[in-house]
Amino acid sequence: MMNRIEAALTDALARGESGAPPMLTNALRYAVFPGGARVRPQLCLAVAAAHGAEVHALAEAMACGLELAHCASLVHDDLPCFDNAELRRGRPSVHRAFGESLAVLTGDALIVLAFEALAQAASTAPERLAPLVLILSGALGSHRGLIAGQAWESEASVPLEQYHRAKTGALFVAATTGGAVAAGHDPLPWRAVGEQIGAAYQIADDLLDALATAEQAGKPVRQDAALGRPSATSLLGVQGAVERLRSHVEQAVDAVPLCPGEGALRALVRQMAERLVPSSLQQSAA
Amino acid sequence: MMNRIEAALTDALARGESGAPPMLTNALRYAVFPGGARVRPQLCLAVAAAHGAEVHALAEAMACGLELAHCASLVHDDLPCFDNAELRRGRPSVHRAFGESLAVLTGDALIVLAFEALAQAASTAPERLAPLVLILSGALGSHRGLIAGQAWESEASVPLEQYHRAKTGALFVAATTGGAVAAGHDPLPWRAVGEQIGAAYQIADDLLDALATAEQAGKPVRQDAALGRPSATSLLGVQGAVERLRSHVEQAVDAVPLCPGEGALRALVRQMAERLVPSSLQQSAA
Repeated sequence: MMNRIEAALTDALARGESGAPPMLTNALRYAVFPGGARVRPQLCLAVAAAHGAEVHALAEAMACGLELAHCASLVHDDLPCFDNAELRRGRPSVHRAFGESLAVLTGDALIVLAFEALAQAASTAPERLAPLVLILSGALGSHRGLIAGQAWESEASVPLEQYHRAKTGALFVAATTGGAVAAGHDPLPWRAVGEQIGAAYQIADDLLDALATAEQAGKPVRQDAALGRPSATSLLGVQGAVERLRSHVEQAVDAVPLCPGEGALRALVRQMAERLVPSSLQQSAA
Repeated sequence: MMNRIEAALTDALARGESGAPPMLTNALRYAVFPGGARVRPQLCLAVAAAHGAEVHALAEAMACGLELAHCASLVHDDLPCFDNAELRRGRPSVHRAFGESLAVLTGDALIVLAFEALAQAASTAPERLAPLVLILSGALGSHRGLIAGQAWESEASVPLEQYHRAKTGALFVAATTGGAVAAGHDPLPWRAVGEQIGAAYQIADDLLDALATAEQAGKPVRQDAALGRPSATSLLGVQGAVERLRSHVEQAVDAVPLCPGEGALRALVRQMAERLVPSSLQQSAA
């Protein structure tokens, strides 16, 4: 499955490279490769595959679009006017490597490429394109998406659950519901699966920030405390946060609806959850 | 036609406002209203209307998407890491009014809203959505779109025509070809119309930058000289640039293909061209 995702991402970037500004081209590749665990696109493809039929090109495009959108948010999130992060995935962040203006443009271009990837794959199922574009725009957008999540950080008063749902949950919900729509199925039963996985990831991210070294995390840590952001560890303590994380994973597994690949999908969710907290942290939290 | 465009823009922003982060909501409205001349959406709607049938909801959505994309590029273009412009449309630029991080997010959100507007309007003609998304993503994108245009400014060596086509021409070509596709017609004959109008606008922008006061322009001037950017006035002189502009307008008028509203469209192109250079400049250039 990973090969498929890397190939789709490579294609999405390569499509517009010939004759494009060379430094921007390099910055785009740098922002996307080598990637992290690619959990959102994996989840999207797995949901599409769980419906039994051959995976449609739109499922791959949606997986690809979700990862491009995720990468865009990381690039802009690292900018000096946000987290001012020097490191990402263990390397200099995009603005450190390419300068601030190219980092802004890289994030912009990745958002555009995400929608382009969807449209490129829609020819055999044109009626599925509008719902997929709406799922992706909702997950990214200023209402309840990633952008809203980042914008809540600028507000004096932050509704915590809304903030987490927007900043972390939205892309996971888009991964499960988008996988279903791309396969021609009803997205509604898949919402809860995405929501619970998103909530688990938000806690995992808070744990990583609170407990890992920058080397383990591949990015700066103790940002929540430094920037005064609310976090699961400050609210629940480390042990409480780990318990809450496990409870969300169980709820995600329970929420998987009846479908041909139900068992495989439950196994994947558990497997993703196992990697959520590095083993060194599991010990320190145990 | 202007009422229709303002209404479509108002709807596109209002759709996601309830429960969204309030400052981002304000910044989005500030970036879009009050607007400039809305020439790109006007051109798009006029091309759709020139095909004779009632204007499809997708034509309005495409017009709206083009203007949102244009506003996004202005917001990001004004950022300190690009032009560091204090003024836009005679008021403080978005980052001056709302801070840099909200300005980055505002541009991001406007890009997302542009694609969302298209998907919202596609239900009665789903097969037109993919080509329209591809036209919009191409006009914005890192290959030959607005983002590529801005990225060329970071390169040591800039292919001038490619730079101008990307930075100014791409959205005008998207306006004419997008208007045709939204109306269910072949976009190809409309390419040249958009290209010529885009070339005229690029020259008008260079003239404004070289000759107007900041008050006339509503934004900082003499930026091309200050930032060492190539411009039509430095290459052709003022008189030469005005002549070149008029020649592009004539070529645009000549390129309008046979269609029911051919005459009205030619008149609109001429009318747009008349407003291209403020009368005070026409005198100083005469």
